[in-house]
Parts: sequence; structure tokens; C-alpha cells
Amino acid sequence: MTLTEKSKKTQDHVLKTTRSILMANGFHNTTINDIIKATGVKKGNLYYHFPSKEEIGLAVLEDAKEEFFTFLAQSLQGDSPCAKVANSCQTIIAAQKKQIFAGGCLFGNAALEMSDSNPRFAAVLQEVFARWVGEIDAQLSLAGPDCSLNTNLSPSLLAKAIVATIEGGIMMSRVSKDPADLEDCLAVIKAILGK
Amino acid sequence: MTLTEKSKKTQDHVLKTTRSILMANGFHNTTINDIIKATGVKKGNLYYHFPSKEEIGLAVLEDAKEEFFTFLAQSLQGDSPCAKVANSCQTIIAAQKKQIFAGGCLFGNAALEMSDSNPRFAAVLQEVFARWVGEIDAQLSLAGPDCSLNTNLSPSLLAKAIVATIEGGIMMSRVSKDPADLEDCLAVIKAILGK
Repeated sequence: MTLTEKSKKTQDHVLKTTRSILMANGFHNTTINDIIKATGVKKGNLYYHFPSKEEIGLAVLEDAKEEFFTFLAQSLQGDSPCAKVANSCQTIIAAQKKQIFAGGCLFGNAALEMSDSNPRFAAVLQEVFARWVGEIDAQLSLAGPDCSLNTNLSPSLLAKAIVATIEGGIMMSRVSKDPADLEDCLAVIKAILGK
Repeated sequence: MTLTEKSKKTQDHVLKTTRSILMANGFHNTTINDIIKATGVKKGNLYYHFPSKEEIGLAVLEDAKEEFFTFLAQSLQGDSPCAKVANSCQTIIAAQKKQIFAGGCLFGNAALEMSDSNPRFAAVLQEVFARWVGEIDAQLSLAGPDCSLNTNLSPSLLAKAIVATIEGGIMMSRVSKDPADLEDCLAVIKAILGK
């Protein structure tokens, strides 16, 4: 393994391990020592890769963002635009159901914890939600009125409400500890999409 | 003012002031000293009323819960069940729009910060969401298929998705700092309700 490969491996290990900690405990409630303890990476080495806790947090969000968009692209499967959106929501909700008891949605958590106090975090989160809405909007625009029960809702409004319903459903499932809340939200999204 | 009245006034002052701090900074990130500083209530007096930070946090949630249910009952105005639900959502969203830049929704924030780690907080939050869904469900059940664009969605599913959409919309508006996200979610809820 070259030095660059080793460096990349350390960075990736820090990002993935810190992601789990941040999902469980939030940003403010996580210390650099928690990250050192969980990763086993020495303090000097950690600061060599990331100059501050803020930079680690941002890098975790950026890393999760890239992973989510890859996942999102793969989830848009189906023989029509409405089917693609319905399948994408179902795939995302299936993945989230596994995580309800392990921190829920990193982006949603960070949105409520960090978006008022840290504009750099807010910018990454805004990109995540805007691009997610944009991908759904693009599919619904191809579908025309088929996907909106003839309500004359614009695709962009409907796309935004779909993302909001998923994020709100994750929140409700975390409170009730019952994945059914999230499944019920999926059922409503599918009904609106005619699927 | 009697001693009991004075005591009640102090408690209420602590609850309302702490609510603002918790909405802006979250529970973990707020210290007893922050509360003492913001309320001007001396440490001994504060501990006389509330034995711990956890008890203050729970009392803040209970107080906000009661206020919310009074607000919710008043917001269900209209000449039909669908109109009542649509007006209620509109009233809640109008109130939230004023708070987007001041902490958003106390219950949503606490749900993501506290529901995994503190079962007592989770129980209050679960009561808030379940009762809110229940009130909407009751109206939609009176309305029958009128309120669901003939999708055959059960009133309870639709009620859950409406609450999820509002909570998710608040989250998205806080990230974008744009109340339009929340208004767009309201437009979709109204369209589904045929309003």
C-alpha cells in the first residue's frame, strides 16, 4: 500500500466511523476524544487529515452526500417515471427502516441541529435536499399529470412534499420506535403517484 | 401575590424562557447555567422548582404540549371536516413560518435529539405526534373519501402523512431559510384534501 493509499484508507475509516457516532449523538455532543477513541486513530494523525472537528463533520456530510446520490441514482428503477419515483422512495425507506434504531437520517438530524448555527453545514444540507427534490421533480415532469392524481400540482411542489414526507416519517418512526409510521407514509406517497 | 401564585409565576417564566433556549440550542447543548443566566432565577430557587435539567426539559415539553393541543383545537375551523384539517394545517404552518429562523419545531428538534437516548422525552413526543395524528384522523374519518382524492387511503394513513409532511417541511425550510418550502408542502396537503 502506498502512502497515498494508506492516507485515503485512514480518512475513509475516520469518516465512516464518525458518521455512526454523529448519527447516534449529534455534532455538539461528540468530542474529538470520542472520535479518537472510536477510530483508534492517534490525535496527531487525525489532525493531520482534518484540522478541526468542524472539518471532520463537514467531510462526513460530504462523504454521506456523495454516497446518497449514488444510492438515489440506482434507486430510480422502473418502467415509467412514476414507477421510478415510487421505487426510489421504497428503496430509501427500506434502507432507513434498518437505521431507525441507529440514528435515523444523518441529513435530517444535522438539518435540525446545525443549519441555524453553521452556514457551511447548512450549505451541504441544502444541496442534499435540493438535489434530491430535483431528481424527483425531473421524473415527475416527464410523467405529466399521471403522477399527481390530476390535482394540477406542479412536479416541483409534489417532489418537495415527497421528500418532506419521507423526512417527517423518519422522525415519527424514531419517536414511536415503530417502522410502520414510515411504511404508512410510503403508502400515501405511492397512492399519490398512482402506484 | 400569594406564595403559590409567585411560585407558579416563577415556574412559568422558567418554562417559557427555557423553551426558547432549547429550541435554539437543543437540550444537550444547554447547561443549567445557561438557564440561570437567561431566566435570572437563582440556582437554589431553580432547583427548588425543578430537581434536574432533565426535569426542566420534560416540564418544558409538557408545557409546550398542552399549549399545542389548545392551539390545535382552535385551529380546526371550517364548514366541513376537510376544511377543518386544511385550515388547521394552514394555521400551524403560518405559526411555524414565524419560527423558522428561531428554532423551528420544538417537538421535531427534541424528537431527533432525544428520542433515542431518553425514553421519558420520547414518551411525551410520541403522545404529541399520536394525538395530533388522531385529531386529523378523526376529521378525515368524518369526511370519508372526500378528503383523499378517492385514493382509498385510510384516514389514519393520510393523517400520519400530513403530520410527516408538515414536520419534514419545517426541516427543509430551516435548511433553505426559505418559508416557501413549507408553503409548498401546505399546497400539496390542501390539494390532497381537495381544498
